[in-house]
Amino acid sequence: MKNLIPAGVTDIYGLTMVNRRNIINKLEAVYQRYGFEPLSTPTIEYLSVFGGHHGEGEKIFFHLNDKHNNKLILRYDLTVPLARFISSHPEIKLPYKRFQFANSFRDDDVDHGHFREFTQCDGDIIGDSNLLADAEIVNIAYSGLKEVGFNDFTIRLNHRLLIKGIAEYACGSDCDILSIQRALDFADKTIKNGIDGVKQDLLNRGINSDSVEKICYLLGIVSKSSNVLGQLKEVLVDCPDAISGVNELEEILRFLDNDVSSHVSIDLTLARGADYYSGFILEAVIPGIKVGAVLGGGRYDNLVSSFSGGNIPATGMAFGLDRIITALNDLGITNNISNDIVLMAVNRNQLSESLLAASNLRSAGVNVNFNVNFDTLESAVDYAESRNYPVILHNLKNNCLEMVKLHENDFSNKIINLFK
Amino acid sequence: MKNLIPAGVTDIYGLTMVNRRNIINKLEAVYQRYGFEPLSTPTIEYLSVFGGHHGEGEKIFFHLNDKHNNKLILRYDLTVPLARFISSHPEIKLPYKRFQFANSFRDDDVDHGHFREFTQCDGDIIGDSNLLADAEIVNIAYSGLKEVGFNDFTIRLNHRLLIKGIAEYACGSDCDILSIQRALDFADKTIKNGIDGVKQDLLNRGINSDSVEKICYLLGIVSKSSNVLGQLKEVLVDCPDAISGVNELEEILRFLDNDVSSHVSIDLTLARGADYYSGFILEAVIPGIKVGAVLGGGRYDNLVSSFSGGNIPATGMAFGLDRIITALNDLGITNNISNDIVLMAVNRNQLSESLLAASNLRSAGVNVNFNVNFDTLESAVDYAESRNYPVILHNLKNNCLEMVKLHENDFSNKIINLFK
Repeated sequence: MKNLIPAGVTDIYGLTMVNRRNIINKLEAVYQRYGFEPLSTPTIEYLSVFGGHHGEGEKIFFHLNDKHNNKLILRYDLTVPLARFISSHPEIKLPYKRFQFANSFRDDDVDHGHFREFTQCDGDIIGDSNLLADAEIVNIAYSGLKEVGFNDFTIRLNHRLLIKGIAEYACGSDCDILSIQRALDFADKTIKNGIDGVKQDLLNRGINSDSVEKICYLLGIVSKSSNVLGQLKEVLVDCPDAISGVNELEEILRFLDNDVSSHVSIDLTLARGADYYSGFILEAVIPGIKVGAVLGGGRYDNLVSSFSGGNIPATGMAFGLDRIITALNDLGITNNISNDIVLMAVNRNQLSESLLAASNLRSAGVNVNFNVNFDTLESAVDYAESRNYPVILHNLKNNCLEMVKLHENDFSNKIINLFK
Repeated sequence: MKNLIPAGVTDIYGLTMVNRRNIINKLEAVYQRYGFEPLSTPTIEYLSVFGGHHGEGEKIFFHLNDKHNNKLILRYDLTVPLARFISSHPEIKLPYKRFQFANSFRDDDVDHGHFREFTQCDGDIIGDSNLLADAEIVNIAYSGLKEVGFNDFTIRLNHRLLIKGIAEYACGSDCDILSIQRALDFADKTIKNGIDGVKQDLLNRGINSDSVEKICYLLGIVSKSSNVLGQLKEVLVDCPDAISGVNELEEILRFLDNDVSSHVSIDLTLARGADYYSGFILEAVIPGIKVGAVLGGGRYDNLVSSFSGGNIPATGMAFGLDRIITALNDLGITNNISNDIVLMAVNRNQLSESLLAASNLRSAGVNVNFNVNFDTLESAVDYAESRNYPVILHNLKNNCLEMVKLHENDFSNKIINLFK
């Protein structure tokens, strides 16, 4: 056991880690461009804070007791701690826009390929009921995906009131909204089996066949329409909830930044799992890549109030870091990660000159790995190639520094210029 | 309990968090300038990995059991996981220079002002026995402290072999090295009570008074000498361990970057707590600031091998993030943290023009918090001032955007120029 790590957690190193940090920096910068500020909350929270918000999720809480026998868990997500934080800081002027990139923990079955410790990249706006805030979340989703390198992606939008309206339209007012919502939350299956997949799931959940036909009729006309929201308004004219949902989606679309709209589509088969959503919801998928949604979120106007009392609306999203990385890898977008460090491989007889050269390079902002551990240029090249360094400076053959360029990029060209 | 967090952990937000991230970025950049690469290891480790390395520390391990009843702990530090990582990755070519900034956990008594979750900022070089590697650690210590804003600081150096030699010189070969080491590890008390404090502690630990006199004589001449190492060589000429230690320190000093030497002093009252150090050790203190050492480290040639077998030397250090922040605050260096975000406070009648202006600013790399929640300029100013924003753009009074400068800095000047 001495060398092992528990199942479902991982060491991240080398180019994988360099790439991961690059992506995190880009996503954080997007949140910051929209005026979001950073927040850090503890890894450890009281069980009582998390209880009652995650339904089935509570079965996979990671429990621990401290010395004083307090009942604690490792945080399950970053949303509940945000609500807890807001409730104990009434002095913070709203709206509060924050991002938090941190690890959450779920003691899940790792056979299913789930991680037990994983990074969440959350951004939320607390205390703003305006639909502009929802549009801002969609703009951030778009900017983040663009920034990390995706060109082809679809941001799917739906609305919990629209789902409620559809359920009422199909089954009447005492319908089982939750069953219908869960059957609709079926994005992957829809891709694979189309509306038939949803139909079968609705029937399996005990929805009667007339109602199922009505829902599938709606999905059918929508999937063919170029004016989805207009069409829904016509069909659902007698369902006030549905009309409210459609109106809100229309307004959100109106507030999107340039270019964003062309990547957005209304998708009635998007429902999202968490119970706390109350308004618009979003997910994004990369066509042809089978990792599921690479981000998700929506409006949740009741969660923060359940801690704070009063009425504190909220909207937000999270990028799925691991899925984004998998998708970028599958698309070959991260094939050429540059590890912009100079290996300075030096013989011991030229130490002071070499140290001075390294020091000058560092002052010019260059990252230098200084080493006296190589007897031959070949061993230095092996070392540099194993780390994907673009450049070696060495004096292993003669007494003056020579440069070996391992691959061509902006960094190696910069070093050539500095070295002249 | 619904709004509470456990004792000894904390929420970090607002300017405190902005400042913390700035400092982390600067320290990470220093490690990167010396060619260190990032590593991430799990928060959760097997108890068996950590057992046997931390002596008394094991009493404050944070234990947890997972579903399958594995005995786990939250990591106690970042050094043991590094040794564990190296042992399971023999394919990594050495030397491996890595940094890791992450939280560690200790279920300590919080009455003593200890955190139970705290950030460590480690950098280590694995697989390099050369004293140049030790000198690189000292150079990094210097660069990090400079970079975050300190001008006046002392990096104290000592050597475990020199401590061993002093113990042998004073008490003979079957001396109680550990007791002497612990009595010498007394940096704060020495500042307060001088050599008398060390003397009393040595006597309390049962060292006989002749030996104590010899040690204090040594401390006395050293504290007055401008050539500490030369003087030690004369007095300790018959103690081969001591001479080895002195020779190594001399060589490390020879390899320091420009300007570093003037901030370094040899200090025999530095010993460091951890058992695993085997060579040079270092700490840094800020004169006049009572937070203790702001960084610490040294060479530990046997820890990695205890996981990997063979002989894998190692040297490294950690910046003490919380102490660095406290010291910077005490010195007033972080009084004027800038939160470089524009508040765009907009009335709802001018939405599309305002959204376009925000979008253009963002494209120019400016962080913009867009808001339609303010009815008066006064409420917008309150909001911006509570977050230390330098600039507001608003159209709350007229129909065109106007600028309010809250304070003068590079950012507000940039916005003035963009806004022209």
